[in-house]
Amino acid sequence: MSGTAVPDGIRSARLVLTPLDLAADAAGLHVAYGDPRVSRPWADEEPPRDEAETRERLAARVERPGGRLWTIRRAGEPDALGVVELADVPPTPWLSWMLRPAQWRRGITGEAVAALVEHLFAAGGLERVEAWADAANTGSIGVARRAGLTERSRFTMSTPVGGTREKVVLGRLRAPGPQRFHLAHPVLPVRDVDASLALLHAGLGLEPGFRAGEPAHHAAARLGPWSAGPALRLALAPGGEPIAPVTVVLDAGTPLAGLAARWTAAGGRTGGPVRRMPWGAYELCCLLPEGHRLLVGGPPS
Amino acid sequence: MSGTAVPDGIRSARLVLTPLDLAADAAGLHVAYGDPRVSRPWADEEPPRDEAETRERLAARVERPGGRLWTIRRAGEPDALGVVELADVPPTPWLSWMLRPAQWRRGITGEAVAALVEHLFAAGGLERVEAWADAANTGSIGVARRAGLTERSRFTMSTPVGGTREKVVLGRLRAPGPQRFHLAHPVLPVRDVDASLALLHAGLGLEPGFRAGEPAHHAAARLGPWSAGPALRLALAPGGEPIAPVTVVLDAGTPLAGLAARWTAAGGRTGGPVRRMPWGAYELCCLLPEGHRLLVGGPPS
Repeated sequence: MSGTAVPDGIRSARLVLTPLDLAADAAGLHVAYGDPRVSRPWADEEPPRDEAETRERLAARVERPGGRLWTIRRAGEPDALGVVELADVPPTPWLSWMLRPAQWRRGITGEAVAALVEHLFAAGGLERVEAWADAANTGSIGVARRAGLTERSRFTMSTPVGGTREKVVLGRLRAPGPQRFHLAHPVLPVRDVDASLALLHAGLGLEPGFRAGEPAHHAAARLGPWSAGPALRLALAPGGEPIAPVTVVLDAGTPLAGLAARWTAAGGRTGGPVRRMPWGAYELCCLLPEGHRLLVGGPPS
Repeated sequence: MSGTAVPDGIRSARLVLTPLDLAADAAGLHVAYGDPRVSRPWADEEPPRDEAETRERLAARVERPGGRLWTIRRAGEPDALGVVELADVPPTPWLSWMLRPAQWRRGITGEAVAALVEHLFAAGGLERVEAWADAANTGSIGVARRAGLTERSRFTMSTPVGGTREKVVLGRLRAPGPQRFHLAHPVLPVRDVDASLALLHAGLGLEPGFRAGEPAHHAAARLGPWSAGPALRLALAPGGEPIAPVTVVLDAGTPLAGLAARWTAAGGRTGGPVRRMPWGAYELCCLLPEGHRLLVGGPPS
């Protein structure tokens, strides 16, 4: 295939998507990747210096097991304007995309990603797909939504280059059906439900949810302000019986240094200072009076 | 105020919202509530039989502490076309709306709810707001999104009249900022991580997530297919030491009868049949070999 041929592929109103052809497409795609506005979201690396480096990076992605990339072109035009990638990562194949900045704000990625997802659901054997977007990036969220993906989860990602960002996970199932499970709420047996609620509120900002009994024998401490969201459950432990400590992993979106200071100021004990774990993440261990361990992972500062 | 006056209120391009006036608005609103397409989502009751019953129900809502209702009119026209309600329920004020079916599909509720939310955030002291929509109701989700609310959580609701429905919780903060916490993952100490993963997969459909060690000493069993979603964490317990059972509450979106059959078929023990709890919800207790209790709440069948 020559660089000026217009190959067959997945078609939409304005576009054609074809499997990435490194020889033909690298020059056009370097126009995109060489622009820091495009490469910035590759948070851990600098923009490629030249076409050869763009080709090298794309080749590495093509060679990943299950990695598939399609080049975006306007129908009848030879220029490679951008790419859509489907990475075969567990638990769910993962979509990403990029486009030359000169082509932004014309609905091109939305059209391309929607066409690709429809094609893969209809004919490509794909059962489900997800994409991540910065929570503040309404453009990227709009692209995913146009392809029928809806918000499923949020998390916070910290990288040396990209800093700390809240990410939205958007997903779509080929055959939508009821979700089997929504949330798992750990139950912590405690000696004093109201005192535990007060400590979790003062020390971590958790908000009291339901509360049963007077004095309370069951209650919830919500992780966020939304109803039906994740929560820690508190249950009054029978007097006299020993309490076995429970461990809960908490995903935090705000700096652990601040959480540690707040927890300590509220009278909470920690299992030591914020520490870097062998796998690179940071962790703060907040201890409840009964010995329960809240292992809080999040951005360090 | 007479029924034909056009009162001052919150204005948008086409609409005026005024605090509900039972005397002036009940007739117009009965046109809406008397229609089963409107009253069906009031899942636990039948449509009101006459204007008096509509007025009575609206009066009960006005009298709730913190309950506020606004009537929707076209600017310059006297007819009460619908209402927007802000219920002051913990943890977060809760928006709902309805409109005469003859006015549907014109963007009226979206315009009304957006104008109200902007007004309350700018001048009404509101800090955060949420709304619920059926997961399949793209119209209602679109209304909330137009008012700047985005998806935050999902849950499943069962009522005698409405049946079982998956609901989306949409929310907006007046001052958006990073979410303090995303999720809480309970950690279950187990004797055999891989066997536990296999039982949770076969018995409840949980999907293996990360897995560390050979044989595994830590792993995750995901509640759903999305990355960064809720999961049970499994940790290899030191040999010989006793394991203290942990309790986890799981929110299910599919019938407990089917989950019970699947869990039992996979060799899992239960704490008895699905039972109705004193507060009306249904619960299935799935036991892990170590005695951990998964209290699964959800629709009974």
